[in-house]
Amino acid sequence: MSTHPLEELIHPRSIAVVGASGTGRGGGFVAPLQELGFKGEIYPVNPKYSEIMGLKAYARVSDIPGPVDYVISSIPASQVLGLIADSAEKGVRLVHLFTARFGETGRAHAAELEQEILREARKAGIRLIGPNCMGLYYPAEGIAFNQGMPKESGSVGLASQSGQAVGEITGFAAQRGVRFSKAISYGNALDFNECDYLDYFTQDPETNLILLYIEGVRDGPRFLDSLRAAAAVKPVVVVKGGRGDAGTRATASHTASLAGSREIWNTVVNQAGVVTAADLEELVDIAVSFYFLPPVYGRRVGVVGGSGGSSVLGADLCEEAGLDVIPLPNDIRDELRRQENPVWDWIGNPADFSITGHDNSDGEITRLVARHPDFDLLIIFVHGPWHRGPEPFSLDKHLERYRLDDLSGKPALLVLQDRPRGMGGDDTAEYQRIMAEMQERFVKDGRPLYPNVGRAASAVSKMIDYYQRKG
Amino acid sequence: MSTHPLEELIHPRSIAVVGASGTGRGGGFVAPLQELGFKGEIYPVNPKYSEIMGLKAYARVSDIPGPVDYVISSIPASQVLGLIADSAEKGVRLVHLFTARFGETGRAHAAELEQEILREARKAGIRLIGPNCMGLYYPAEGIAFNQGMPKESGSVGLASQSGQAVGEITGFAAQRGVRFSKAISYGNALDFNECDYLDYFTQDPETNLILLYIEGVRDGPRFLDSLRAAAAVKPVVVVKGGRGDAGTRATASHTASLAGSREIWNTVVNQAGVVTAADLEELVDIAVSFYFLPPVYGRRVGVVGGSGGSSVLGADLCEEAGLDVIPLPNDIRDELRRQENPVWDWIGNPADFSITGHDNSDGEITRLVARHPDFDLLIIFVHGPWHRGPEPFSLDKHLERYRLDDLSGKPALLVLQDRPRGMGGDDTAEYQRIMAEMQERFVKDGRPLYPNVGRAASAVSKMIDYYQRKG
Repeated sequence: MSTHPLEELIHPRSIAVVGASGTGRGGGFVAPLQELGFKGEIYPVNPKYSEIMGLKAYARVSDIPGPVDYVISSIPASQVLGLIADSAEKGVRLVHLFTARFGETGRAHAAELEQEILREARKAGIRLIGPNCMGLYYPAEGIAFNQGMPKESGSVGLASQSGQAVGEITGFAAQRGVRFSKAISYGNALDFNECDYLDYFTQDPETNLILLYIEGVRDGPRFLDSLRAAAAVKPVVVVKGGRGDAGTRATASHTASLAGSREIWNTVVNQAGVVTAADLEELVDIAVSFYFLPPVYGRRVGVVGGSGGSSVLGADLCEEAGLDVIPLPNDIRDELRRQENPVWDWIGNPADFSITGHDNSDGEITRLVARHPDFDLLIIFVHGPWHRGPEPFSLDKHLERYRLDDLSGKPALLVLQDRPRGMGGDDTAEYQRIMAEMQERFVKDGRPLYPNVGRAASAVSKMIDYYQRKG
Repeated sequence: MSTHPLEELIHPRSIAVVGASGTGRGGGFVAPLQELGFKGEIYPVNPKYSEIMGLKAYARVSDIPGPVDYVISSIPASQVLGLIADSAEKGVRLVHLFTARFGETGRAHAAELEQEILREARKAGIRLIGPNCMGLYYPAEGIAFNQGMPKESGSVGLASQSGQAVGEITGFAAQRGVRFSKAISYGNALDFNECDYLDYFTQDPETNLILLYIEGVRDGPRFLDSLRAAAAVKPVVVVKGGRGDAGTRATASHTASLAGSREIWNTVVNQAGVVTAADLEELVDIAVSFYFLPPVYGRRVGVVGGSGGSSVLGADLCEEAGLDVIPLPNDIRDELRRQENPVWDWIGNPADFSITGHDNSDGEITRLVARHPDFDLLIIFVHGPWHRGPEPFSLDKHLERYRLDDLSGKPALLVLQDRPRGMGGDDTAEYQRIMAEMQERFVKDGRPLYPNVGRAASAVSKMIDYYQRKG
């Protein structure tokens, strides 16, 4: 159990949702808590209602009979000081301010109000998440801020200044099997800030991988220390929002963040040994590699299963991502000759399976590459069925030729490439169903899955960077 | 009408498919011709059948009663010399060798056979496409090589050493509304080579944009001349397969191509003023910009419609792609103030519509940016419906707020971003249907459509490079 101050605060006995309503976002905070099965009490607070989402509603926090540990505020900014006073009276420990329109507006009075809220909260011993953020997602505790957020817990911790980013990252990652210990959208970072959340995840035994979306850093030296400490014990992947002039203007109006210069940022993250991603898509790609692969320290990759041009470009993209697509070792070639494989002298690395005719020798070639000590990892193209007979499609049968269960424990990324609709005269709906079934199977089997080889190569290469730096 | 020698050859009165069969790939060449409605005669040739796909089959080309202009060969390599002799007797002008296993095997006897075929063809006045390729796709003539290839013609010409690449490029491009004049997969380029196809497209009045996937170049100086001549009259976008060591090995075993060094290649394409893409996805992205946008000579972009983090990262990605995300001009801000827009002082460029609450002022902001002379182009985020009421979804009503018909003729790219499944508690199947309907509408309206802002910015920036170099 972490000794970080956040640890106790995010295990509330009860949550009051202030500004909840039967419809819209306020009610929205009640509904996700119900949906994920929050075990404590949920208290909707709104003087206009007697009941919200089947729960008794209260006019004020101080009207609630039981203890209230955690308050979610979705009332207007002008009412927040009153809420802090009311919460103080009630002994609330943590207030999440979904409420926005503070410093990010660029308006002096709004920024002043924000500071006054901070002062009053400090006086009352209340800590703040936000303002201007979606707050906490903690599936094991049944805490979520959107309906439809994944119920399953995992080992990824995410701190993000953007709430939309939390929704997208957790959602897209879940489609690829990556699950979260907890995620925090923290907006303007008025009280707890990026260092606090990072320090928390560094200590958190439920978290093995830390993802960050950061727009601004309040205390550069402290942040560098926190990043270093985090990266020393678990991988950290960070997306910086506001890297250039326009992005910096945008971070100011989004979360009142001073983005700082790109050069200083690059220096900090390089010194700290963290992994950087350019956007949320790449962040999820890298997370998929860390989540499902063991540490990989070498760059010699076997690229198998492409066809013609995709095989050629696959090799290019791997090399450009920093992987080493070594020639096929001679002893593999000798073994294929011994097996009377007709392409023993022709097949290479990348291994182009269009020259084998995608026959049953493909699995054997994959198996030989997987067990060969010269390869540190594999990237395997997996295809949907190009031609199907009249009998019902069997995924087991289709996958047999890949022999994916025979990879000798070698780290392997799968590339499941879509093909254009209608191509090959196939029945689109049925083909899409098969592709979805295949994706589901791979996710269930814990395979790192990518939509193209470029994204796979880039993600895993950045993962290898991390492990090589750590040594 | 082009005077290039290919022009007459690709307008055959009849096509003989040698090695056709009722099933498999051979029959496959017959079926696509039938599917696209080739107007000339189709003659299946195979001594084992009397009828194929409802057509009378012949034992040999010379048994066919009418004239035969064009032969597609899918018989084994060892039988091709016989076919050339038979075709010569019949007066055939063009043979497309789908037949493979020649120089690309790396085996000396196969490479010698290839050269002997070339000598015999030359003696007989027969020109060759291939070998080891899918050949011609020419929708206006009803010529295709896969079932399901798009029937509609357009203005893009594509020459590719990979047949799979032709299928993917034409298919994925079609899903975004881009159609082709003709596409040629040319494999080992034994007779006609990349310069011939490029010269053909340069002259071709049906082609306004040229796409190339090239693994090797036979005659560097001639190729540079051809590229320069092409790029002087129409945009050329090229993907080079085989850029590094492994890719070079792969091009040798794929199309017997000598890839040459990355440095020479880069020099050539820069001198020629063509646009380069790293992979097929980027090639299609760039084609979408050229296809739907007028020439754009400036880089000042208005980025509108993002939300929070996506707006911030959108600005970063645009700048990193070489676009200039200028601050919101003061006269737009003044106009918004005059209109009593409550975020007149807060909204910027990028214009984050989460601060407007995605209300009806969004369209007005977009309209003001579109008509302002300081902006050279727009990138507009378009969203699916986040919250839907019980009434049936109306796309017209949903799109009203974007005011996309009121853009003052300003070049505009649309970003239609997917969101995670189940997010917001939405009904997945219905949401997917709405997204598909929206995509279809945009394609029908001729809008350049991208799945994320990074790809949109990178594609259009490369288009601007081309027009700026041309001046």
